[in-house]
Amino acid sequence: MADEVILLNFWPSIFGMRTTIALEEKGVKYEYREEEDVINNKTRLLLEMNPVHKKIPVLIHNGKPVCESIVQVQYIDEIWPEKNPFLPKDPYQRAQALFWADFIEKKVCVCGRRVWTTKGEELEAANKEFLELLKILQSELGDKPYFGGDKFGFVDIVLIGFFCWFPAYEKFGNYSMESECSKLMAWGKRCMQRDSVANSLPDPERVIGYVLHLKKLFGLE
Amino acid sequence: MADEVILLNFWPSIFGMRTTIALEEKGVKYEYREEEDVINNKTRLLLEMNPVHKKIPVLIHNGKPVCESIVQVQYIDEIWPEKNPFLPKDPYQRAQALFWADFIEKKVCVCGRRVWTTKGEELEAANKEFLELLKILQSELGDKPYFGGDKFGFVDIVLIGFFCWFPAYEKFGNYSMESECSKLMAWGKRCMQRDSVANSLPDPERVIGYVLHLKKLFGLE
Repeated sequence: MADEVILLNFWPSIFGMRTTIALEEKGVKYEYREEEDVINNKTRLLLEMNPVHKKIPVLIHNGKPVCESIVQVQYIDEIWPEKNPFLPKDPYQRAQALFWADFIEKKVCVCGRRVWTTKGEELEAANKEFLELLKILQSELGDKPYFGGDKFGFVDIVLIGFFCWFPAYEKFGNYSMESECSKLMAWGKRCMQRDSVANSLPDPERVIGYVLHLKKLFGLE
Repeated sequence: MADEVILLNFWPSIFGMRTTIALEEKGVKYEYREEEDVINNKTRLLLEMNPVHKKIPVLIHNGKPVCESIVQVQYIDEIWPEKNPFLPKDPYQRAQALFWADFIEKKVCVCGRRVWTTKGEELEAANKEFLELLKILQSELGDKPYFGGDKFGFVDIVLIGFFCWFPAYEKFGNYSMESECSKLMAWGKRCMQRDSVANSLPDPERVIGYVLHLKKLFGLE
């Protein structure tokens, strides 16, 4: 029996991009279902499949849900291990990859969200910290083509969604990513040459439009 | 060559307890180094081994650091796989264990910290949410002896450190864990019958003393 794979997602989600990239990298056929109004009107299927967080992305594999994007990417890597493995085989290298994924999740994502939900001094602090965090990542990248070394890997998948959000961060934060983090920008462009990434990341202009919508929603416009 | 394993820790840390329990479960010999004053005076070794977060626990295995407790527990499970495996072999069950570990990390730990760092209405909201989160965990536990099923496993290791903090939560939150979450308390007592857990969790009275110290530190006393 062929695998039935369904992804519940909402297009601007950096988390959802991780999962689509992972599925594309493995060449897995899946049905993409857009949760049109994930803030106000969640579908019954979403609530049923992710009763704890009630959030996208949800990966449904043969009827069973896997929630949380980093868990989904690991799961996809384990279920379809042959093509383009994401995590290194060596336990120490794996631990390092998991460490950086955790850093992106707990630091970059949390701070990145503060940029859209605060104003005044809080916003300034968030903008400053966001750039500092990206510079830590850039220094971890060093001269490697990818965080995974010579190969596009786990940490690349976890971070790359931000690339299509960078123009929005630049516009509203009034800075230039190219001057602040040129190596990270070069890494982003390198990743965008992969079909899996190019097919999963929305147009940055559309993200800017979504951010304007968010700012109105949070009463920050 | 025998493995050289060093753990940098600070005794009240729920995160550090995870790593000591994991090492004890595997029967790994390790040197325990207490970071006496981790808030004001971090050792040079800690800063060198965890330059990103500058936080305990740090596991140093043959000179190389592994940071973040959940990553450490996975690493220990991979390096010493034979004795008492923590994570299930089945990818779907593994994903579920990783999901609940993530829930504890992102929700329970973050909310648990708010209880010690806020006052007034914020504190009331944090106390209420903390109990709600524990009830979600209790419902996931169900009638199983452990989160790992019949065996003490990954999620048990990630959560059990809270058990020696519960008396502090009860005292300062003015509620009874036994009435609110009796099944979770029974689980905690069951886990405490294991040497690995009993040897790793400090006396709850000592934790209460530490919380009083914290509250003064944050100007909440």
